[in-house]
Amino acid sequence: MKQDKILIIGAGAIGAFYGALFAKAGADVATLCRADYQIVQKQGYLIESETLGTWTFQPSQIIKNASEYVGKADYIIICTKIIPETDRVKLIQAAVDDNTAIVMIQNGINIEEELVQAFPDNNIISGLAFICSNRVAPAHIHHLAYGKLTLGSLNQDNSEAEHLSQLLINSGIEATTSPDIVGSRWLKCLWNAAFNPLSVLSDGLSTAQILNTQERLIRIIMQEVSAIAKASGHSLADDSIDNNIQSTYLMPPYKTSMLLDYQKGQSMEIEAILGNAIRTAQSYQVPCPTLDTLYALMKLKELKSSNYSPTLD
Amino acid sequence: MKQDKILIIGAGAIGAFYGALFAKAGADVATLCRADYQIVQKQGYLIESETLGTWTFQPSQIIKNASEYVGKADYIIICTKIIPETDRVKLIQAAVDDNTAIVMIQNGINIEEELVQAFPDNNIISGLAFICSNRVAPAHIHHLAYGKLTLGSLNQDNSEAEHLSQLLINSGIEATTSPDIVGSRWLKCLWNAAFNPLSVLSDGLSTAQILNTQERLIRIIMQEVSAIAKASGHSLADDSIDNNIQSTYLMPPYKTSMLLDYQKGQSMEIEAILGNAIRTAQSYQVPCPTLDTLYALMKLKELKSSNYSPTLD
Repeated sequence: MKQDKILIIGAGAIGAFYGALFAKAGADVATLCRADYQIVQKQGYLIESETLGTWTFQPSQIIKNASEYVGKADYIIICTKIIPETDRVKLIQAAVDDNTAIVMIQNGINIEEELVQAFPDNNIISGLAFICSNRVAPAHIHHLAYGKLTLGSLNQDNSEAEHLSQLLINSGIEATTSPDIVGSRWLKCLWNAAFNPLSVLSDGLSTAQILNTQERLIRIIMQEVSAIAKASGHSLADDSIDNNIQSTYLMPPYKTSMLLDYQKGQSMEIEAILGNAIRTAQSYQVPCPTLDTLYALMKLKELKSSNYSPTLD
Repeated sequence: MKQDKILIIGAGAIGAFYGALFAKAGADVATLCRADYQIVQKQGYLIESETLGTWTFQPSQIIKNASEYVGKADYIIICTKIIPETDRVKLIQAAVDDNTAIVMIQNGINIEEELVQAFPDNNIISGLAFICSNRVAPAHIHHLAYGKLTLGSLNQDNSEAEHLSQLLINSGIEATTSPDIVGSRWLKCLWNAAFNPLSVLSDGLSTAQILNTQERLIRIIMQEVSAIAKASGHSLADDSIDNNIQSTYLMPPYKTSMLLDYQKGQSMEIEAILGNAIRTAQSYQVPCPTLDTLYALMKLKELKSSNYSPTLD
């Protein structure tokens, strides 16, 4: 039986975790990593999962650049943050073969177009992870909860997406495919566009504190996102906002990814989440004054963060 | 010649400075102060002005409560911050006589109604200070620049307002009266509603940095304020926003009052500036989504600030 050859790009809290699961299911999994390169070379990744146990994941290849990849990748799975400093096309180009499916497990809205245009003949699969996982030390991943991955092809049928899902299911993690993965992204954006900026702009209030005092603002943000989604052809279910609010009330205290990035002085996914949502709104002439304001304020936060190291908390 | 009897309520950076100037012009000036009571008793106020020199201001009476005031006050001048914790009516009541004019040198919008209702037969004078003055130590005021005071009565003619103006002019500070002091407040609110929250939400970026990167947002905020002012019968001049933007570009680096309060962990004038503007908008059904968002975010900042001491800068 032919072994799936998978290359993970950006093997941190998300990439190393899913890479380890694909390897567990029998795939040949290589990782491209930079910060943790030396320690991974030496000892692989320590995966400590609250639901799946603890084990070491030893990639088949550990590389710093796509050009070093040996063989032909069946799947390249990009798990980097989407920030202006990272050119994803350049990052993967040298390892992309005619038959390589390109998979994104990344946050944001309209993040696929760049890859569809650069690799029009490759299968481009967009993926959404609902996961709580941290990189607690170099090459040391702590998976706290959840992990469901939803995959969908943008330009081909979902057979390869289904194959990847099945590998994860075999390793004990929920996975599924979606015929409208872009709609699924908008649904996730409801939450992301509200709680990510508000957690940063409030200097780290919990989702519960934000909701308890400003549920009205949260709903306005979600309504704006929903209106943009609808205008762009991806109407969300009527109860999406209520469901999001209710499930957030039930969540344990949680630090959003933007808040974690902000507190570490790292780049935040402002463009992928807010910027792209607003640009979509502009192209369909949907007003979104609240998102506009949050975006502008987050750009100010980013500017401030680049001047000084944050000393919050 | 009868000497003007003036009682200053809240003699900090603003109150002690103007009090000192009224005294310089020959008025009998008492101060009500709490934090600095003992040191003022001992040595008065040290006024260090970049434009008027350095001198000591010794109040005629120093009191902690209005009930201690001896004699009948011709003018009670309130210079406290407007925050929900401070009940201005209670604060001054015991010293208000039939002929006492009540003057506010305070920030915000719609801040007079409470006093007009409590003292309908007294002259209620609203005042706006354009001043850069700090309390650098207890009973030590550093006046850096500006100082112009604009006064206008809400319920009587401006003769007493003109008299107070003349006293300040005699002491070397610009002062004037306005037939539409409420309109003047809205004009000042253009700037306050934009730069106060943005300086806090950006964790202390300068007005120049904010303007250089987010002039569009500033203009949107100012347009919303201008629309509310117009709906409430106080149309601002067409070039008000442009003038505000241009003069702010020319300002030296400046910390807004809300930013100073936030950084000291003190109450911010969120309600007087943003809350009252929004409530006016609601009563005239003027949409102001950007102000709504800023207000909600500032309430989150306030909530966070009440949880932890800020450690910014």
